[in-house]
Amino acid sequence: MTRWKLTLEYDGAPFVGWQRQDNGLSVQEVVETAVQGFSGETATVHGAGRTDAGVHALGQVAHLDLAKHTTADTLRLALNDHLKAWPVVVLAAEAVGDDFHARFSAILRRYRYRILNRASAPTLDKGRVWWLPVALDAEAMHRAAQSLVGRHDFSSFRAAECQAASPVKTLDRLEVRRAGDEIEIAAAARSFLHHQVRNMVGSLGLVGRGKWRAADLERALAARDRRAAGPTAPPQGLYLVEVGYESALA
Amino acid sequence: MTRWKLTLEYDGAPFVGWQRQDNGLSVQEVVETAVQGFSGETATVHGAGRTDAGVHALGQVAHLDLAKHTTADTLRLALNDHLKAWPVVVLAAEAVGDDFHARFSAILRRYRYRILNRASAPTLDKGRVWWLPVALDAEAMHRAAQSLVGRHDFSSFRAAECQAASPVKTLDRLEVRRAGDEIEIAAAARSFLHHQVRNMVGSLGLVGRGKWRAADLERALAARDRRAAGPTAPPQGLYLVEVGYESALA
Repeated sequence: MTRWKLTLEYDGAPFVGWQRQDNGLSVQEVVETAVQGFSGETATVHGAGRTDAGVHALGQVAHLDLAKHTTADTLRLALNDHLKAWPVVVLAAEAVGDDFHARFSAILRRYRYRILNRASAPTLDKGRVWWLPVALDAEAMHRAAQSLVGRHDFSSFRAAECQAASPVKTLDRLEVRRAGDEIEIAAAARSFLHHQVRNMVGSLGLVGRGKWRAADLERALAARDRRAAGPTAPPQGLYLVEVGYESALA
Repeated sequence: MTRWKLTLEYDGAPFVGWQRQDNGLSVQEVVETAVQGFSGETATVHGAGRTDAGVHALGQVAHLDLAKHTTADTLRLALNDHLKAWPVVVLAAEAVGDDFHARFSAILRRYRYRILNRASAPTLDKGRVWWLPVALDAEAMHRAAQSLVGRHDFSSFRAAECQAASPVKTLDRLEVRRAGDEIEIAAAARSFLHHQVRNMVGSLGLVGRGKWRAADLERALAARDRRAAGPTAPPQGLYLVEVGYESALA
């Protein structure tokens, strides 16, 4: 058996999310089907981040075990050939040690959230951004966001279905910057609660519109209650950019 | 009658190009239909650049004359409402003088060409880039490109169907730069010949792969013969970014 690490890019639009579900096609299922097509083996493909329906990935990481002897290049090319019908590609394949686990070995997750902030709807970026036609103050959003950085109980930004053992997480970075009509929010942490990024972005949207001040965001965090924070931003603006590991592992 | 200048963004994928044609739906036709839906008037919408099938626009400019009294905001919102079914939006509407002509008054046209240069196919950028899996030398492409800048007879980069009176054009800028897996080519001129940008990019692709040296590109230009230059790059990587006018006109 060889353990393989895969780095994946995908358009989340046609999928019910990363994880296999009964109600539709998942990214995990199409990758597992590609693995079976190549190797004849029924392998579970473990992802680092369980992206929701409609959420995209530029650098999702997954691992799987294969008995079949192959090389990294052959595996990547063969899987991409089997994935051709779907907007999913393997960017890189790498043999790793048996102690590597895509999800549990990860020490860094980076997400990007894209807001299109202009009067007219998106055309080329439809399904790839959250369109907010009301003018947003990106600098106010950035300043307010800094109160969320650090180690906190993020219960106010946690989905009801979240399975994490603890709501306490350390947010390493939450940066908001404008580039023309677009506002980009960069979030980094070892791990996030379910919907945490989209819930933080939803509250930052209230700050951007001037409905909330920075102090309101602080109060929402301190409340440790989902009802105290803003709405969940839609999935199509969210991208899993990178998953990081100790260099010894990967 | 009021003359209106429109700035438009569109995804070129579902269209036969900007210009009305018998063989399918054009951007011009959907905009003219939207104008009729709003005003009841049959107006011709004149575009600054006749983008080909599959070519995108971030800032196409067009003009039209309307008898109906309206404001710039009302016109933009109403047209966008009528355009909802299509990946076409009006970014800005502006009343201009009768001497403004989207095509003939333009003094600057800026295009961008995007190449995805990596082993794996695009997912999110499918239909928005030219995918070239063979490693390209962007610096060599940039250096070679400089021989095309200036006033030249561009017959070698001109489509057979080109209707321009003269093949002599002044290319103001042709810059190639790499950003990660992507190579972006920026071209600017008062006007271009039909397929000129895509034909220049096709030849630059040969330079990037090492099949051509800078001297081969110079020889292709000097030949004034389409057969001396490289292939036409595909349309989906091309974006009409901006059309510029004398500030007094627009």
